[in-house]
Amino acid sequence: MTPNYVALPPDITAAEALRNVKRTGRGKETLNVLYLVDRDGKLIEDLRLGSLVLAEDDEKLIDIDDPPLVAIPATASGDDVVAMFEKYDRVALPVVDSDGKMLGIITADDVLEFAERKATREIQKLGGSEALDAAYFDVGFWPMVKKRGGWLAALFLGEMLTATAMGYFEHEIERAAVLSLFIPLIISSGGNSGSQATSLIIRALALREVRVADWWWVAARELPAGISLGAILGAIGVLRITAWQSLGFYDYGPSWPLVALTVGAALVGVVTFGSLAGSMLPFILRRLGFDPASASAPFVATLVDVTGLIIYFGVALLILHGTLL
Amino acid sequence: MTPNYVALPPDITAAEALRNVKRTGRGKETLNVLYLVDRDGKLIEDLRLGSLVLAEDDEKLIDIDDPPLVAIPATASGDDVVAMFEKYDRVALPVVDSDGKMLGIITADDVLEFAERKATREIQKLGGSEALDAAYFDVGFWPMVKKRGGWLAALFLGEMLTATAMGYFEHEIERAAVLSLFIPLIISSGGNSGSQATSLIIRALALREVRVADWWWVAARELPAGISLGAILGAIGVLRITAWQSLGFYDYGPSWPLVALTVGAALVGVVTFGSLAGSMLPFILRRLGFDPASASAPFVATLVDVTGLIIYFGVALLILHGTLL
Repeated sequence: MTPNYVALPPDITAAEALRNVKRTGRGKETLNVLYLVDRDGKLIEDLRLGSLVLAEDDEKLIDIDDPPLVAIPATASGDDVVAMFEKYDRVALPVVDSDGKMLGIITADDVLEFAERKATREIQKLGGSEALDAAYFDVGFWPMVKKRGGWLAALFLGEMLTATAMGYFEHEIERAAVLSLFIPLIISSGGNSGSQATSLIIRALALREVRVADWWWVAARELPAGISLGAILGAIGVLRITAWQSLGFYDYGPSWPLVALTVGAALVGVVTFGSLAGSMLPFILRRLGFDPASASAPFVATLVDVTGLIIYFGVALLILHGTLL
Repeated sequence: MTPNYVALPPDITAAEALRNVKRTGRGKETLNVLYLVDRDGKLIEDLRLGSLVLAEDDEKLIDIDDPPLVAIPATASGDDVVAMFEKYDRVALPVVDSDGKMLGIITADDVLEFAERKATREIQKLGGSEALDAAYFDVGFWPMVKKRGGWLAALFLGEMLTATAMGYFEHEIERAAVLSLFIPLIISSGGNSGSQATSLIIRALALREVRVADWWWVAARELPAGISLGAILGAIGVLRITAWQSLGFYDYGPSWPLVALTVGAALVGVVTFGSLAGSMLPFILRRLGFDPASASAPFVATLVDVTGLIIYFGVALLILHGTLL
C-alpha cells in the first residue's frame, strides 16, 4: 500500500480538477485513478483520470460517469485483495479504515507480484518443502538443504510409524509373504488420492471458492468420490491379479481369489480414507491456527500410509482368517 | 488481447492529443495508456494519460517525459506475458508483430486472472489430478471423479510395477520378513524428496527463474543435495533401529546392525535418486513436448517407488548376503 496518491475535493469541476492534477500529480504512484476525499479525510468516490478527461469542463467531479467506488477494508488479507482485484478489474483500489477514512492505495502490479509470490509459496509447500522465498539458483546450497531437510526429516519421523505398524503385522507377513507384494501399491494409492484432494481444497480455500464453514459439504462430496475412485482402482487391482494368475505370469498361491478380494477391498477403504483425510486436513490445519497450505502432498501421503497399512492388514485378517492367516 | 485502444499520431501536441482522446476515448478498454502509432501502423511509443495531462499544452507527444516503450511480441507465451508485467509494473502492454506493427493491448487485470488461473492449474496438476478449470463446487460429481480417476488409474497402473518388483523379492521377504518392515518408510522417503524437487523446478521453470538449458546446473546441484538429504534421513533411520533394539521396543533379530546399515545405505540411495529424478522429470517432459507441470508429486512418487524397491533390495542383497539372505 502507498499513501502517494492524488486526492481531490469532491465539489470542484472537471477543469479545476485537471489543473489540480497538473499541479500536484508529478511523482505520484499512479495518476490513473484519482480519489475524491472530503474535509475529514473520508473517501467519497474514486475517479479514473480517463473519465475526468472525457468529462465536460464544468461538470462536477461527483457527477462524472465512472464505475462505482470499491474500497478495500484495512483488515483485508492478501488473498482478499487478490480476489477483489480479480473481481473488479481495476488498476488500483483504495484502502479505507472502518470509518471510511482513506489510508492509501494498492496498485494492480503489486497485486500481481503478491499473487505470483503467494502461488509460488503454495506450490513449494505443497511439494513438501519450506517456501524458498527466492529464485531456485539464488538460494545457497546449505540453506536449500535446510529448507528441504527439515520437512523431509519431520515426514520421515512420521513415516517411521509405518515401521511400527508393520512390526505388528510381521507375523502375518511371515505367514503370507504374498501380502507384502501389494503394500507399496495400496499405500501409494491412498497417498495419491489424498494428495489430489488436499491440493484441490488448498487452492479452493486460497481462491475463496470454498470457505472454512463449507467443510461439511466438502466431506459430503469427498466420501462418495473416494468410494467411487477406490472402486475403480479396486476393480483394476482385482483384474490385474486375476489376469496374472490366469495367464501364469505370477503364482499368488491357491488362495489367490481371496488375496485379490483383499487387495480390492483394501483399495476401496484406503482410497476413501485418503480422499476424506486429504480434503479435511486443510480445514483441520486452519482450525488449529496453521496455514492450510502446510498440508503438503507428502504430509498427506505420510498420514495415509500408516492408516493404509492398518486398513490393508485389517481387511486381510478379516478375509484371509482361517486360510492364509 | 483487445484491439480496443486509443492510437494517436506521434507528431501532434499534448493539447491536440487531449482533444483527440476526448473525442475518441469513450468505450475504449483503457485510457490509462495511449499508443503513438505512425501512418504504417507501426508502434512508436506508449504514453500514459497521466504523463500527457502533466505535459505542457504545446509539447510534442514524442517529447513528453514517460517511461520507455515495452512491447510484447505476438509470439510470447502466457508465462512470458506474466513475467513482463511483473518486471515492468505497467497497467497495460501493447502487442506487436515481428515488423513492430501494433496488434492490440493486454491489460494488467487480464494478466492477474491469467496468472491466478495458471497457478491453480499448476497446483491441481501437482497434486496429481487433471486441472478442474472451474471452482471446486461448480464441477459436477462425475466430471470430478473422471478428472481425478483418470490420473489415479494411470498412477495405479504404474504403481503395479511395484508389485512386479516385489514379486522378484518375495523369496528374500520370506527369508527375512524384517526387511519388509521398512519398505513404506524407504520408498515414501524417495517419493517425498522427489516431490520436493519436482515442485521447486516446475515453479522455477514457470517463473522463468530456470531455463530448460539449465538442466545440467540443476542436476549438478540436486545430486549433492540428494546425497546430503539422504545422509540425514539415513542417520535418523540407523539411530531409530539402534534405539528401538537397545531399548527393547522391537527385536530386529541378531543381524540387526546389518539391517540398520541396509536401511541407512538404502535411504541415501533412494533419496538421492528421488531428488535427481524429481528435478529432471520436468525437463524431460518439456523436452518430450509435454507440459513440465504434468510431473505431479504422485507421478514422481510412483516413479521413485519402483526404483526405490530395487535400490533397497539391491543394497540388502549386497549387505545381508551370507547372513539373512
